[in-house]
Amino acid sequence: MIRMKKLKSIIDFLKKAKRGPQIILKKDFGMIVAETGCNPDWKVVDAGTGSGFLAMLLGNLGCKIYTYEKEKRFYNIAKKNIKNSGLKNVKVKNSDITKGIKEKNLDMITLDMKNPEKVIKHGYKSLKSGGWLVIYSMHIEQIQRIWKELKKYDFKQLKILENIQREWQIEGRTFTRPKTHMLAHTGFLTFARKV
Amino acid sequence: MIRMKKLKSIIDFLKKAKRGPQIILKKDFGMIVAETGCNPDWKVVDAGTGSGFLAMLLGNLGCKIYTYEKEKRFYNIAKKNIKNSGLKNVKVKNSDITKGIKEKNLDMITLDMKNPEKVIKHGYKSLKSGGWLVIYSMHIEQIQRIWKELKKYDFKQLKILENIQREWQIEGRTFTRPKTHMLAHTGFLTFARKV
Amino acid sequence: MIRMKKLKSIIDFLKKAKRGPQIILKKDFGMIVAETGCNPDWKVVDAGTGSGFLAMLLGNLGCKIYTYEKEKRFYNIAKKNIKNSGLKNVKVKNSDITKGIKEKNLDMITLDMKNPEKVIKHGYKSLKSGGWLVIYSMHIEQIQRIWKELKKYDFKQLKILENIQREWQIEGRTFTRPKTHMLAHTGFLTFARKV
Amino acid sequence: MIRMKKLKSIIDFLKKAKRGPQIILKKDFGMIVAETGCNPDWKVVDAGTGSGFLAMLLGNLGCKIYTYEKEKRFYNIAKKNIKNSGLKNVKVKNSDITKGIKEKNLDMITLDMKNPEKVIKHGYKSLKSGGWLVIYSMHIEQIQRIWKELKKYDFKQLKILENIQREWQIEGRTFTRPKTHMLAHTGFLTFARKV
Repeated sequence: MIRMKKLKSIIDFLKKAKRGPQIILKKDFGMIVAETGCNPDWKVVDAGTGSGFLAMLLGNLGCKIYTYEKEKRFYNIAKKNIKNSGLKNVKVKNSDITKGIKEKNLDMITLDMKNPEKVIKHGYKSLKSGGWLVIYSMHIEQIQRIWKELKKYDFKQLKILENIQREWQIEGRTFTRPKTHMLAHTGFLTFARKV
Repeated sequence: MIRMKKLKSIIDFLKKAKRGPQIILKKDFGMIVAETGCNPDWKVVDAGTGSGFLAMLLGNLGCKIYTYEKEKRFYNIAKKNIKNSGLKNVKVKNSDITKGIKEKNLDMITLDMKNPEKVIKHGYKSLKSGGWLVIYSMHIEQIQRIWKELKKYDFKQLKILENIQREWQIEGRTFTRPKTHMLAHTGFLTFARKV
Repeated sequence: MIRMKKLKSIIDFLKKAKRGPQIILKKDFGMIVAETGCNPDWKVVDAGTGSGFLAMLLGNLGCKIYTYEKEKRFYNIAKKNIKNSGLKNVKVKNSDITKGIKEKNLDMITLDMKNPEKVIKHGYKSLKSGGWLVIYSMHIEQIQRIWKELKKYDFKQLKILENIQREWQIEGRTFTRPKTHMLAHTGFLTFARKV
Repeated sequence: MIRMKKLKSIIDFLKKAKRGPQIILKKDFGMIVAETGCNPDWKVVDAGTGSGFLAMLLGNLGCKIYTYEKEKRFYNIAKKNIKNSGLKNVKVKNSDITKGIKEKNLDMITLDMKNPEKVIKHGYKSLKSGGWLVIYSMHIEQIQRIWKELKKYDFKQLKILENIQREWQIEGRTFTRPKTHMLAHTGFLTFARKV
């Protein structure tokens, strides 16, 4: 396997990694793994890289990752983070994914970027049969645009999910209750499968 | 790697796999992966096996899994499911984990069983430093008993989470809204790390 | 006071009342009372009446209610329900509210109908200063249209809320947990105040 | 009617009212009104008064309220708030409700206090048939104790609810999404009816 033994815990590593743009939350990453059933044999394209957190989390699972970032400064942050992680199976590219996807026969494409609807056409071509397209969106308007574009291709198993995670606390031995504050929203995940 | 190429999609496979006792939901499995950062190098002990769904989902990630099931009939269901999955890295044992854990130097222990508090003592010994104990509970009373027992050992990063997943629908082009019904509850996940 | 003593419990009454179109849920009615602080001195216009549940729930609080329903068959259902309730302060009108609101100096207008954006213009004129406009919407697209229209008038304290209600169960003495199923969605409530 | 016209908006008034101990949130008050169907004819006992917010919100609906507060300093805060509100139908008493309830034939009793289980016995006697007992609890352990005590009397329609309220935002014309942060927890409301 390509993954290096050097990385003892991705969770510990990411706590200290450099953060440029907004990063994906663990709860949303977990949903991607769980819904798609990704595994170490998978070849995955990801965009935009941002600080590289999603690419590294998927890389930690042993997948081969190609991650696209068009902005030079985010590319540099991600490149450094990935190098420090020791992950040899994550390749960051300073390219604009809306211009096209070079890699073919992909098991999954993950998009967390502005205008992901511009990538759906390329994504459909690059996915293998059974492969997944996963799009992270903050706003309802993005979902609406994505949905309209997805309908033009032969995608199946379309699904839009959001994960509301609640943390509980036990103070002393006797005060069990949800913590007072929580994140009400990070984003929506749209799943579509080429079948 | 041990994982077989034969298994094309764990998600497709599990839809058809035999179900005996209640199975873990994808949303809860996703939380385990995301919170612990598990990876293909991990050695994991799981109990009770039930129909083997959590063991197979973790096995699909390439981890080496030892799963304990004391009930003969569930053991048989799980054995068959695991065989059909083609996963070579998931070993099911017809044993009672409350009697002890043979495997040592574990990266993770996942418990979804009655009285998981009886396993915490064994679990603490079998985990490596940095290893995670993850317990799935349906009822608050279980969490309360677990919490009390966890406090006797040197666990850190204690956390109780629940995942409330909401699905959205877009009917036609213009009717975006959450689906009417949802699962209000599957279970709580308690995380504890030996450090 | 106008309210009749005859009605012992609106909750008991509504369980048996006739239901035509979809009715408002208690959780959403509660939000209207709580956010606006309505009281028995209020004069309220409501549309569309539907089966009259919201009109009767507000009428039970002692408010003077004028409720508009353009569909004859719903008007008839509501008329009968209101008569059976014994509430003397709820008046149902077989009129189309998009054509205009006759009543003036209103404390609140509640809208649960198609195209509520067509009523905002009339509503603004009929509300007293400090009065509330409350709109129930099932879909995001409705909220978006409402929002755009609200912005044309001098409304303040704009707020969009949804209420996710979770019921808990205690089985026997020791099994505390949320009930398994819940309503994931009934609707969104948009509040706007003329100030 | 007893309620004074002087109070133009309870919502505006409470924003400026003095706050001593933790106050009830609007979302939880709304649930009480909606589940019980309270109306201006009701006679209600409330304890502990705290800053008087729940008593005043119920008083604003026209109910006759007797509210018990054993702590002198909270009693003083509440007394002042109620006087400023102009509500003539809310009476605050500097008494310990665990010692007994003087008022009889009550439509509702609302409890937001330590050890509400000590009041259930008195409450059962003071409620009229069809009357509601409503208890606000922050912790699961409180619910468990309440539930055990409620089972000793002939209460029906037992229900435990929590209200998770999510606010949405529309930035500009095109960015519809839930607000980032929310309250994950205020409390649980237990309802029981004497029938």
